[in-house]
Amino acid sequence: MAETFSFKLLATDGKARRGVVSMPRGEIRTPAFMPVGTGGTVKAMYMDQVRGVGADIILGNTYHLMLRPGAERVARLGGLHEFARWPYPILTDSGGFQVMSLSKLRKLTEQGVTFRSHIDGAAYEMSPERSIEIQGLLDSDIQMQLDECTALPAKPTEIERAMELSLRWAERCKTAFGDQPGKAMFGIVQGGDSAALRVRSAQALNAMDLKGYAVGGLAVGEPQSVMLEMLDITCPELPAAKPRYLMGVGTPDDILKSVARGIDMFDCVMPTRNGRHGVAFTRFGQVNLRNARHADDPRPLDEESSWPSTRDCARAYLHHLVKAGETLGAMLLSEINVAYYQSLMQGIREAIAHGTFNEFYQRTREGWARGDIAPR
Amino acid sequence: MAETFSFKLLATDGKARRGVVSMPRGEIRTPAFMPVGTGGTVKAMYMDQVRGVGADIILGNTYHLMLRPGAERVARLGGLHEFARWPYPILTDSGGFQVMSLSKLRKLTEQGVTFRSHIDGAAYEMSPERSIEIQGLLDSDIQMQLDECTALPAKPTEIERAMELSLRWAERCKTAFGDQPGKAMFGIVQGGDSAALRVRSAQALNAMDLKGYAVGGLAVGEPQSVMLEMLDITCPELPAAKPRYLMGVGTPDDILKSVARGIDMFDCVMPTRNGRHGVAFTRFGQVNLRNARHADDPRPLDEESSWPSTRDCARAYLHHLVKAGETLGAMLLSEINVAYYQSLMQGIREAIAHGTFNEFYQRTREGWARGDIAPR
Repeated sequence: MAETFSFKLLATDGKARRGVVSMPRGEIRTPAFMPVGTGGTVKAMYMDQVRGVGADIILGNTYHLMLRPGAERVARLGGLHEFARWPYPILTDSGGFQVMSLSKLRKLTEQGVTFRSHIDGAAYEMSPERSIEIQGLLDSDIQMQLDECTALPAKPTEIERAMELSLRWAERCKTAFGDQPGKAMFGIVQGGDSAALRVRSAQALNAMDLKGYAVGGLAVGEPQSVMLEMLDITCPELPAAKPRYLMGVGTPDDILKSVARGIDMFDCVMPTRNGRHGVAFTRFGQVNLRNARHADDPRPLDEESSWPSTRDCARAYLHHLVKAGETLGAMLLSEINVAYYQSLMQGIREAIAHGTFNEFYQRTREGWARGDIAPR
Repeated sequence: MAETFSFKLLATDGKARRGVVSMPRGEIRTPAFMPVGTGGTVKAMYMDQVRGVGADIILGNTYHLMLRPGAERVARLGGLHEFARWPYPILTDSGGFQVMSLSKLRKLTEQGVTFRSHIDGAAYEMSPERSIEIQGLLDSDIQMQLDECTALPAKPTEIERAMELSLRWAERCKTAFGDQPGKAMFGIVQGGDSAALRVRSAQALNAMDLKGYAVGGLAVGEPQSVMLEMLDITCPELPAAKPRYLMGVGTPDDILKSVARGIDMFDCVMPTRNGRHGVAFTRFGQVNLRNARHADDPRPLDEESSWPSTRDCARAYLHHLVKAGETLGAMLLSEINVAYYQSLMQGIREAIAHGTFNEFYQRTREGWARGDIAPR
């Protein structure tokens, strides 16, 4: 295993990049999709399944974990890897996004943010330094700077204020993180839907010489075209030799189009959340298993899938489990969906390595456009 | 595989019996515990886990399956084994117990019972013949007669009326079941808490020469001592050469004491239901993982368990998952509990075979009496 964090670019195909992040707990093959393990569990999945479908890294949510079971407690129990029984790399967010979206009575100042837990109303404070401290207690391998993420649409002055604050917080996080060769702290490009602000943010972060860069504040209400435009503007400002992570994104289509623009890492709750709501991701697009047309259909979701549950479970059985509210329905569809996302990433990686990303892109989109196989 | 249903008594130790039921879909080592797969799924478990913990047979609920997804639909889809991906033996109940406990507007006559679904209010009728027909559509291996189960306490005249009706229904079920060498239809002894009625019921069923016998109408509100007294009276009236199944029972203590009285088969929702509510069954009795004393405890539930999750998962992690309402908590505790039940049955079977059931009984009860290991 590598003793220090590093990123190696193995191949490019247009702007799409095939690479590998190496760190003491393992390698991350990029482009990578990180299943979201909010509170120390990728919902409704066993960790050996998460590994089995091909995930090299999972994401943990600092906000959720600091509230319950608590960062100091996780540290006493040996860190998040030991606690959740996932010995491979973990990326934690800063907590800032969920503080803004979930907590109560929050108050933001230059120093940081104070808020009350959405679970029990307890008061907390989160500063750039405390965020890095918590992520250190969790012992996460890739830590994120605290930032302020602006929901879109927003006024340009508001976007700029939050972006500039995020830059100052990035400096403080860098100082707090210090010198940890085996780990990394990533900065986050903000700037909303403003090209000029995105460029300003990316250049300032680049100058800080961080180990990796995320693009934040996208997929927060704007059309996909705006997100892609911001990636077109931002990616060229980021150093080629460092990994680029698009936060909280997204649909398989978002991922394909973002890889085409030079993004290396993704995370999203969509495969597990949609799975819990009865929706499967497949080669033929999304399939709603609640639909009555599946009730008598003995065929699997995709008989050519490499994942056993996708290949073996009858649609009729999945339909029944979903309709009856059975936990096994959420379990099967979560694994089926995360497996689909991982197979998509594997296809992307192989295509870039072979210089056939564009063909893969077209073929994959044709499968989705064809739609789910018709009932017999 | 056996072509016909048979039961072989391999050893006895006092009244406790070690045996094996052989049928085309597999063997059932007795005493056996059947995990309950209500609606085509043992809740929150994968079928390969159910098999992996040592289950030879699962139970399916006719009432639930006839309402959703429907018996005719399951038949079209290849039967319950194919539908739920469990190729081993399945026992189905008659549906009568849940009709009485869950359905609405039910009306019972000599012919059968009419009722409305608790799910959508649709009208159904259930006769002895229809119950056997449904169980045949499900393709279950061991089918149960339709009976009327009386909740205790009840008036003797009411218990007698229901018991006599159940005997007439047993005859009709036997006729409806006909000659199916690879399968079995079991009769059900009723008679509430009346010794005389239990004897009358057992003798009348014995005279029908059925392939196996269940004891029903126990664990329905009466003290354990009454249940055991009824077993003491009933078991001697049942033929030694046929399996005896105590329906819906029970706690590990109920099982030990019933095996000691000659019972061979059990089913109960307790391991999965308690698991979903945060309670684990262990060698040291029941452990409520919600209890705050587990919050910082890195130790597993039982480091000597043969089941990996019991041995490897920190109590602190299980506590966290249960408190946070995470699905993985229900998943882990369901498998941990069904694994405990199966290990208990394995211990029982080995002890009877070695003529050491009484020592096993004492040692097991001492473990429970000792209670859970103290916090560090």
